[in-house]
Amino acid sequence: MNRTLLTALLLSAAAPAYGQQSISSLPPPVLADTNVATLRDNVLNNDHYAWDITEGLTTEVGQRLAATEAEGRARDWAVKRLTAMGFANVHVEPFSMPVWTRGPESAEIVSPFPQKLAIAALGYSGSTGPAGVTGEIAYFDSVDALRLAPDSAVKGKIVFIDHHMMPAQDGAGYGQFGAPRRQGPTIASKKGALAIVIRSIGTDHHRNPHTGVQYFTDGARPIPAGALAVPDAEQLVRIQKRGKPVVMHLTLVSQKTEGGHSGNVIAEVPGRDPKAPILLVGGHLDSWDLATGAIDDASGMAIMTAAAKHIMDAGRPLRTIRVVWFGAEEPGGFGGRAYAEAHSKERYAIAGESDFGADRVWRFSSQLMKTDPATHAQLTAALAPLGITKNDKGDADGTDIEPTIAAGAPWISLGQDGTRYFDYHHTPDDTLDKIDPAQLRQNVAAWTTVLAILSGGIEPGPKRPKRR
Amino acid sequence: MNRTLLTALLLSAAAPAYGQQSISSLPPPVLADTNVATLRDNVLNNDHYAWDITEGLTTEVGQRLAATEAEGRARDWAVKRLTAMGFANVHVEPFSMPVWTRGPESAEIVSPFPQKLAIAALGYSGSTGPAGVTGEIAYFDSVDALRLAPDSAVKGKIVFIDHHMMPAQDGAGYGQFGAPRRQGPTIASKKGALAIVIRSIGTDHHRNPHTGVQYFTDGARPIPAGALAVPDAEQLVRIQKRGKPVVMHLTLVSQKTEGGHSGNVIAEVPGRDPKAPILLVGGHLDSWDLATGAIDDASGMAIMTAAAKHIMDAGRPLRTIRVVWFGAEEPGGFGGRAYAEAHSKERYAIAGESDFGADRVWRFSSQLMKTDPATHAQLTAALAPLGITKNDKGDADGTDIEPTIAAGAPWISLGQDGTRYFDYHHTPDDTLDKIDPAQLRQNVAAWTTVLAILSGGIEPGPKRPKRR
Repeated sequence: MNRTLLTALLLSAAAPAYGQQSISSLPPPVLADTNVATLRDNVLNNDHYAWDITEGLTTEVGQRLAATEAEGRARDWAVKRLTAMGFANVHVEPFSMPVWTRGPESAEIVSPFPQKLAIAALGYSGSTGPAGVTGEIAYFDSVDALRLAPDSAVKGKIVFIDHHMMPAQDGAGYGQFGAPRRQGPTIASKKGALAIVIRSIGTDHHRNPHTGVQYFTDGARPIPAGALAVPDAEQLVRIQKRGKPVVMHLTLVSQKTEGGHSGNVIAEVPGRDPKAPILLVGGHLDSWDLATGAIDDASGMAIMTAAAKHIMDAGRPLRTIRVVWFGAEEPGGFGGRAYAEAHSKERYAIAGESDFGADRVWRFSSQLMKTDPATHAQLTAALAPLGITKNDKGDADGTDIEPTIAAGAPWISLGQDGTRYFDYHHTPDDTLDKIDPAQLRQNVAAWTTVLAILSGGIEPGPKRPKRR
Repeated sequence: MNRTLLTALLLSAAAPAYGQQSISSLPPPVLADTNVATLRDNVLNNDHYAWDITEGLTTEVGQRLAATEAEGRARDWAVKRLTAMGFANVHVEPFSMPVWTRGPESAEIVSPFPQKLAIAALGYSGSTGPAGVTGEIAYFDSVDALRLAPDSAVKGKIVFIDHHMMPAQDGAGYGQFGAPRRQGPTIASKKGALAIVIRSIGTDHHRNPHTGVQYFTDGARPIPAGALAVPDAEQLVRIQKRGKPVVMHLTLVSQKTEGGHSGNVIAEVPGRDPKAPILLVGGHLDSWDLATGAIDDASGMAIMTAAAKHIMDAGRPLRTIRVVWFGAEEPGGFGGRAYAEAHSKERYAIAGESDFGADRVWRFSSQLMKTDPATHAQLTAALAPLGITKNDKGDADGTDIEPTIAAGAPWISLGQDGTRYFDYHHTPDDTLDKIDPAQLRQNVAAWTTVLAILSGGIEPGPKRPKRR
């Protein structure tokens, strides 16, 4: 559909007066369902903004580990791209944080069957130093089994935690099966382990380890902590089952320094009413260092930015749409916390985040179900043609918007299909080729629909550049 | 089916007298079709030998690069396992060859968009030395485009050859699309290139480069030659298309030394007639160094060995079945040539090889179609229930048996489904988890059928150990 036609459709409903009312007391959105549907379907078929951003960032910057110079280059890229796309108030809000970086790493079975295994250090792993460490493997089939083990079974050994994570559409397993990564290192350290290796928290069978963050808590001394690729973890299990002591030489060199710099990149589609509560949407700019972070989370930012841009192309919303490309999510949500602190006085109509890949949205949930059932019903109706069902039991979701939601912002969550998400998550395999352009467009269509309905009404504004 | 029943079935036909006749002049095989069918279907449902060998070798030895100590450990393992399985005349036939080994390797875009790419050196690559080399990329979309380029377009640069290999059931693309690997380095060298990188000869999208052998011919000076993982090659194309000069820093450290040692491992099921032409079957023991070589070619050896073992379990064939685990296939078929030279005086009833993964056999072809149509028809009938069709246009196939066939041995070829073979071929991903046990058993059933029909008749012999 061309812009003239869309404008004509949008003009057919006048924008209402709008003040400081709560969402539920607002008049119905100015867009007739037909108009939202037209916009939605146009985006579904024709969006290229999301692909262009994802392709551009992953190609022209590549990996962008939090608080490194690469993330700095990514912020520069972001400011340039968002400005070129016509967003207003594009700026960086810097913050400080520790920097953890990876050095050389390898894992080798010394006996009984000498061979190399594919490994990657977990975030904030202790360092073995370049000489590495050598120790006997102590096998556990779950983090709970490690918890129950006496210290004597672990002391001076390299703990290995196995598990049996399976794919799930909603990614449910990441909670329980992610525990070996999140809690395993601390438990192993407190029991006196030399180091810990885990089966990657992943559902694939490729020689690509899944990194991810963990913290040493409860005063645990940092020990080297790495993830074996799934085929390598299975190999270690087979070797272990031969019944002979298994000795591993492990090298995980890494460095942690204080005083690193990161930042959130912010861009806006200004609302006609600057006092109206804001629509906050975003994803995270940083990635792990092993890949270009196409699905985690270039595509998430790109989806949100594309949706906001489609509203901008259509005209001026009543409410300001703020897009945030959060910095330093991976090492622990630094950007989300910094944002919430810096913007604690602002009021939000909604907060949403996209950080679960680029496969299709299959369900949604929102606080509006309770606070504004009419708008929720309208969302339900407008999203259904995209194959999206409402999920009455959903909770707020998203590391970056969590602190803002905790401070009172209403939330909406669009659940993406995560069946293959943990095949690639945090691995060298998180690259552009994993993105299905058609499913990416469906995501943009869904979020454009949400923004259109919650915008308070879009009035055709002065012509803007259609794209950079 | 238990062994007693099988023996009873086999006993129901008496073995014929058998001398030095050609195959076509032999009396019909002693096994009635029913018996072959029973043996075949039993193997299809119950074989575990092939899995056990594949699992054992890949777990207990791991990678086994030709002429290294790892391949030596593999030979030790082989002798032990084949002896334990009850094979006769188990021995190693050693030979000498050059050894090429891989050192540290990396590829990095220096400008315009600094980032690392996943790379692996090709066999017999020249070495950059530890400091690496830096050069501008000269892009070609095929090896033919490189051939046509003036030297000035290449001189002092790092040649990059792209291509568009797609999966094919019969692996047809490996010929044409493999040319960048096989011939590209020599062509680039002769035009004065600093180095060459190619898009991996593969059909996957994982960050796992596909190595493979190449030779510098026509007096070409060895230059560093590496394969980028497919996603990385695509990334390089995207970067290239931005139109700015692309500069790469390339480190491919490797070493080539003369006087390495390899060997073929040989095992037999002795025939009742020691003078009868032999049934020769095999696969190769060595693997590339990036993975455990489960599909290339632990499974191939395992399939052949399991088939021979099933004949052994059934009784004594008229003809000797010789199983060869060839050494040093990957760097250029050294084992196959050494075998053919050492055994040039022997006569063969058939020669067959399994070296194309572990997915199901879907067609077969054999010289017997012309030389012994009756036996060929019997093979066609007995293989059909396994979903195997005859291929009237097939040729002899297999690096290891090629020299033996060139010297006059009749050939049979069982074509495996190669649709996903080049997803894993020569990559770190060639690991046990890629093998489908059911398809592996189908392969064993097919080869057991072939050996039973060509055995000249199986007579129940003294009881042997059913398995190690």
